[in-house]
Amino acid sequence: MEDVDTPAGRAFDLAVQALIVLSLVLYSLETLPGLSHATRRALRWGELVTVGLFTAEYLLRAAVAKPTRTYVFGVFGAVDLLSILPTLLAAGFDLRALRALRLLRLFRVLKLVRYSAAARRFALALKIAREELVLFLGAAGVVLFLAAAGIHHFEHEAQPEEFASIFHSLWWAVVTLTTVGYGDVYPMTIGGRLFTFLVLVVGLGVVSVPAGLVASALSEARRMEADIREPATMRAEADVRTGA
Amino acid sequence: MEDVDTPAGRAFDLAVQALIVLSLVLYSLETLPGLSHATRRALRWGELVTVGLFTAEYLLRAAVAKPTRTYVFGVFGAVDLLSILPTLLAAGFDLRALRALRLLRLFRVLKLVRYSAAARRFALALKIAREELVLFLGAAGVVLFLAAAGIHHFEHEAQPEEFASIFHSLWWAVVTLTTVGYGDVYPMTIGGRLFTFLVLVVGLGVVSVPAGLVASALSEARRMEADIREPATMRAEADVRTGA
Amino acid sequence: MEDVDTPAGRAFDLAVQALIVLSLVLYSLETLPGLSHATRRALRWGELVTVGLFTAEYLLRAAVAKPTRTYVFGVFGAVDLLSILPTLLAAGFDLRALRALRLLRLFRVLKLVRYSAAARRFALALKIAREELVLFLGAAGVVLFLAAAGIHHFEHEAQPEEFASIFHSLWWAVVTLTTVGYGDVYPMTIGGRLFTFLVLVVGLGVVSVPAGLVASALSEARRMEADIREPATMRAEADVRTGA
Amino acid sequence: MEDVDTPAGRAFDLAVQALIVLSLVLYSLETLPGLSHATRRALRWGELVTVGLFTAEYLLRAAVAKPTRTYVFGVFGAVDLLSILPTLLAAGFDLRALRALRLLRLFRVLKLVRYSAAARRFALALKIAREELVLFLGAAGVVLFLAAAGIHHFEHEAQPEEFASIFHSLWWAVVTLTTVGYGDVYPMTIGGRLFTFLVLVVGLGVVSVPAGLVASALSEARRMEADIREPATMRAEADVRTGA
Repeated sequence: MEDVDTPAGRAFDLAVQALIVLSLVLYSLETLPGLSHATRRALRWGELVTVGLFTAEYLLRAAVAKPTRTYVFGVFGAVDLLSILPTLLAAGFDLRALRALRLLRLFRVLKLVRYSAAARRFALALKIAREELVLFLGAAGVVLFLAAAGIHHFEHEAQPEEFASIFHSLWWAVVTLTTVGYGDVYPMTIGGRLFTFLVLVVGLGVVSVPAGLVASALSEARRMEADIREPATMRAEADVRTGA
Repeated sequence: MEDVDTPAGRAFDLAVQALIVLSLVLYSLETLPGLSHATRRALRWGELVTVGLFTAEYLLRAAVAKPTRTYVFGVFGAVDLLSILPTLLAAGFDLRALRALRLLRLFRVLKLVRYSAAARRFALALKIAREELVLFLGAAGVVLFLAAAGIHHFEHEAQPEEFASIFHSLWWAVVTLTTVGYGDVYPMTIGGRLFTFLVLVVGLGVVSVPAGLVASALSEARRMEADIREPATMRAEADVRTGA
Repeated sequence: MEDVDTPAGRAFDLAVQALIVLSLVLYSLETLPGLSHATRRALRWGELVTVGLFTAEYLLRAAVAKPTRTYVFGVFGAVDLLSILPTLLAAGFDLRALRALRLLRLFRVLKLVRYSAAARRFALALKIAREELVLFLGAAGVVLFLAAAGIHHFEHEAQPEEFASIFHSLWWAVVTLTTVGYGDVYPMTIGGRLFTFLVLVVGLGVVSVPAGLVASALSEARRMEADIREPATMRAEADVRTGA
Repeated sequence: MEDVDTPAGRAFDLAVQALIVLSLVLYSLETLPGLSHATRRALRWGELVTVGLFTAEYLLRAAVAKPTRTYVFGVFGAVDLLSILPTLLAAGFDLRALRALRLLRLFRVLKLVRYSAAARRFALALKIAREELVLFLGAAGVVLFLAAAGIHHFEHEAQPEEFASIFHSLWWAVVTLTTVGYGDVYPMTIGGRLFTFLVLVVGLGVVSVPAGLVASALSEARRMEADIREPATMRAEADVRTGA
């Protein structure tokens, strides 16, 4: 089962992935407003069936794992357990507790990660850029704080509601420096606008650097992987060059 | 006709391209509100003339193609047919069906692609980055889903209209993570805002990676093409270097 | 005067640059609402003095240029003439014509370009990426058109005012695909929102590529310049490396 | 104390950093509206204690520095002094003056910089890209000015309030060319919208270049640092490659 290179292993993996996607679709459908009672019941049954299958998968994996505890106390075991736990527990609890637990079901998305090469490459990229990411996330944090403190100083009197405190102003700083710019809060005084200009000139670079670091680390991770399986890649490149 | 290297072939290509652009301009003009009856009729006649010429081109290409079916059942044949079909069919159908068919006429844009070097390079770039694009579009999909499910949890009670379900919340996730930020939906609770901050820190990188992958694959495709026509390029670079 | 390497030439250049900036500041001040009559008159006098000096500069340059026509009919001569013409002509025309002419005075910004190394590097970068820029600006144009035509189809009935025609919808396409997202027009129907999602996934890459091409061509231009003055650069890098 | 490589030096550094963060949190909490009198007094005491400790640190550093004036008249000495001065002076001044002084306390963020490797790398990156940054910030300034002058011409009559002068229009130019797009000001006339399209096509590249320059200079700075401590890095890369 663990061997994804056998046809049976691949089929099992694909079936579990399909089940995960189905389960997430059911989860989303449940949130739709104005569902009939019959539909709700059908969704509930679908949820119970998928959780039943996930539980079977969990027990199977625990049984197959060489020392059982490597799976049960590992990352994947924890994710698998967390994604079935809410539904299993919901039988014994009242409905209000169910609400918050329902969110835990989203851990099923992480189950998808097990099968994905993207996740492996992401992990490698984070490993490469780890030190720098920490440094620049720190720098981005400092810029956000300074932006919030500054705009609070300039706009607090003109808009006491929107820029009530530095914590309220942080929302403006995040929305502005990521260039999302919803338009729910924006400076109105001349001082605040000049300060925004300054913050954007200095801050856009700092805030966009972490994203760029991840991207460049990813391409470095790709090169590293390519170096390992070099002959295959070079053949593919030769194909492209000859227009095949 | 197929040989773009002869003067006659080039002239034919340019004429068809001009016709395509003219036809798209007519299409756009038709959507203008408050056109007089006379203008509408003139636009209709222009449409019929261009479609007549495109039909002639289609039949000509089908006749010239070595085995006719390589063109008729190929991609370009399908595009050429789809871009004339709506107008040809409109004669036999009533006016309401015409509405949806009109959109098919946009396939004429794809006819332009036949002639463009950009399209060739794009196809090559997509070929290079294919595997990674699929992986990261998948990762972006997962991030969008998690963002939608999370914001639905936090904002559903405060804004039951805007964040009615996870599907409604996906709109917010798309608008926010692409940093478009229209401002029609945005979080208002403290929990939702902290969650937005978290989503932006993690998600901006993931969502912007596919765009970056296309860009870097394009420059790789350029280098590959440059390697093939190397001597010409090196001469050009030498020109630039000497200030010519 | 043309020789910027002599102290006198440098002083002359700096004086002209200062005069250009002063003239642009005067231009901006004139647009301020609620100016007193006295201030307006002072600004008008400042304008006349700067134009007088620019005219003297123009005549001087024309006299000094080896064959006069290389300057008068060259790019810089045209820019210099266009930036003084509006004020010179304004004496003979009534005030309404002055309005549109005033905009021509902005050509003075281009006079700054003469002195800037950034402009030289920009020109070199555009030369390097010329072919690709044309191709991808074309591709961006096609994407914008398809986005406008598509959103017009989906949103025309729900918002007949905002999406009145394809030309009106182009405004939405531009604002969305550049991720500016003012929030004055946005899709409201489910079809329109799904279409927006599709457009953003496909289009962000295409629209952001030209900007990326300019940036990478600029760094290539920098490398080319660095290759020419290599020894100096390597010494500077060695300085940095040793912490100097 | 200055030697961060001894355990005692590291402990001292960490303690000062924790104190700085605590002091900034206190600063932020003070801005919260609706604080009880007791809370205010507690925050005030916290402020006095942290300033007391910072003053002790200042005097200690001044005493330890080899020639005292290298610290006192250096950058770090100035930052350290500026971050304690407002509170020290506040005792002798009335409350209104306190408001503006309070902002000086934000200099404490800069105290964090002393300990951070990110700051060192930033400084190196700015040194590498200095010349180009100045040039392209200049170019960005020219683009912003032209955008503001142009939009003022097109929109002044339709929206005399929002686009009252070129200075008012600069706010629109900044918000648009950084793609923040709050939506508080946007063009409404056809001329203004076509102009916006033009400005975005030309300007996005220019405005995004400085951010890109910083990012690429940072990665260059990283390579330079890596070259110096090369053996260690290569060992780490080998670890990654073998999956360790």
